[in-house]
Amino acid sequence: MKRLLIIGIGTGDPDHLTFQAAKAIAAADVFLIVDKGEAKHDLARLRHDLIEAHGRPPYRVVEVRDPERDRTAPAYTAAVEDWRSHRARIYESFITDELADGQTGALLVWGDPGVYDSTLAALEEVEAEFAHEVVPGISSISALTARHRVALTRVGRPVHITTGRRLAAEGATADDVLVMLDAACSFTEAGAGFHIYWGAYLGTPDEILISGPVDEVADRIRGARAEARARKGWIMDTYLLRRTSPGS
Amino acid sequence: MKRLLIIGIGTGDPDHLTFQAAKAIAAADVFLIVDKGEAKHDLARLRHDLIEAHGRPPYRVVEVRDPERDRTAPAYTAAVEDWRSHRARIYESFITDELADGQTGALLVWGDPGVYDSTLAALEEVEAEFAHEVVPGISSISALTARHRVALTRVGRPVHITTGRRLAAEGATADDVLVMLDAACSFTEAGAGFHIYWGAYLGTPDEILISGPVDEVADRIRGARAEARARKGWIMDTYLLRRTSPGS
Repeated sequence: MKRLLIIGIGTGDPDHLTFQAAKAIAAADVFLIVDKGEAKHDLARLRHDLIEAHGRPPYRVVEVRDPERDRTAPAYTAAVEDWRSHRARIYESFITDELADGQTGALLVWGDPGVYDSTLAALEEVEAEFAHEVVPGISSISALTARHRVALTRVGRPVHITTGRRLAAEGATADDVLVMLDAACSFTEAGAGFHIYWGAYLGTPDEILISGPVDEVADRIRGARAEARARKGWIMDTYLLRRTSPGS
Repeated sequence: MKRLLIIGIGTGDPDHLTFQAAKAIAAADVFLIVDKGEAKHDLARLRHDLIEAHGRPPYRVVEVRDPERDRTAPAYTAAVEDWRSHRARIYESFITDELADGQTGALLVWGDPGVYDSTLAALEEVEAEFAHEVVPGISSISALTARHRVALTRVGRPVHITTGRRLAAEGATADDVLVMLDAACSFTEAGAGFHIYWGAYLGTPDEILISGPVDEVADRIRGARAEARARKGWIMDTYLLRRTSPGS
C-alpha cells in the first residue's frame, strides 16, 4: 500500500508546527510541493525549510507548478472545480509515478487542511489506490484570534465562517462572522455596530494587525492592505467581525 | 510588568503541541492549573506531563479547584457569567499573589483558547495589571475534521459553528454546521439529508469516530456516547453535520 500524509503547517511561523506534524515530515519518503505561483512568496521558502529541518534523509522532493486561478474571477466555484480536477491529476501522477509500494508521500498545507483548502477535496477525485492521513495545523482562524487575544466564540453563541464574496452578498448573518478570502474588503457591508479584528501575514515577520470599530478603521485596513500587497506582491489576510451590542 | 501566557495544548494528544507552545511552557516561571473537576480525567494528567516535558526549572505549579457548572442547567448563559467572574477572581489572585514583577505565568488550555473556552473572557474582568499573549492550539474542530479526513469548509460556502442547545432550537442554519457542547445528542434535529462526522476523546487512546447518514448512525452514536461516558465518567465530543445534497 502507498500512504499519503496531508500535513497542516500553520500560517507562516515555523513554530506553528506541531510535534505530530514534525513526526509526519520525518516519516515521509517523498514530498510533493505544488507551487501555486507562490515562488515569489517568502512563504514558499518555509516549506523547504520545514522539510530540511524535520525530514529524515534519504527523502526526495518533487516540485510541480500549478498556478491557482484568480479568486476574483466570475463563476468562481465552477473555476475552482476545474482547477481541482486538474490538481487531482497531479496527485494521481505523484502517487502512481513517484511512490513505490510501502512508501509514504507528504503534502505540506498552509494553515489547517480543513479550512478553505482544496487538497482533501481534490484527493477524493484521485483514482489511484492509497491510504491517507491528515495532520491538523494551526489555521489562520486560530492564528488571527490568538494574535488579537480574542475568542472566536462567545458563550452559547454561534459563529459563521464565510467568504468575502458571501459577506458582500448577504451582509453579516450572525453577530460573530469570520471572513476568509476577501480581496474586495467587504467588511463595510456588515453594516453598523461591528468591531473588526483584521490580520495579514499572520505569524510572519510581516504580520499586520488592525482592530477597532469598522467605520473607524476600514480606511486604515484598506490602505495597509493595498500598500502591503503592492510592496510584497501577495497578501493573505482574514478577519473577525463582532457585533458590539449583540441581540439575543 | 507581569506577563501571562495562555497556551493552547490541543485536544489530548501530546503531539498536538506546537513548537510555539513548547517554547511558551519553557518560558514560564509559574503555572496555574485550575481543576474544573477533571481530576478524574486522564486528560488532567496530560497538563502535568506537558509541564514536566517542556518546563524549564525552576518553575512552580499552583493548583486551584473550581468545578465547572453543569452545562445542562437552565439559564446556562447567566450561570456561565457568574462562573466566569469567579474564575476572573482566581486569575486575579494568581497574578497578584503568585507572580512577581518580571515573572511569567502560564495557563494551559485544552484545544484552542479561541474556541468555546472562557479563559480569555474571564481575563477581561481581571483588574490586576499584566501583559498577556495567546498561543494558538489545535482545536477540537481541526482534530475532528483531520481524523475524519474531511474539510470543515467547502469552496465558496459558509460553515456555522454552534452549540447543541442552539441546534435543537433552530435546526441546521447552514449546509455545514459544526456543533460543540451537545450533551443532548441534538443531531437528529438537523432534519433529513445530513451526513454526520462525530468524534469523542479526539487525539487520545480512547478516541471514537463514527460517520454516516444521520438517520443511519444516530442510534450508534447515542449508544457509544452513553457507554463511554458511563465507563470513563466524562466525555468530550463534537461533530460536523453536512447536508448531502446542498442547495445554492
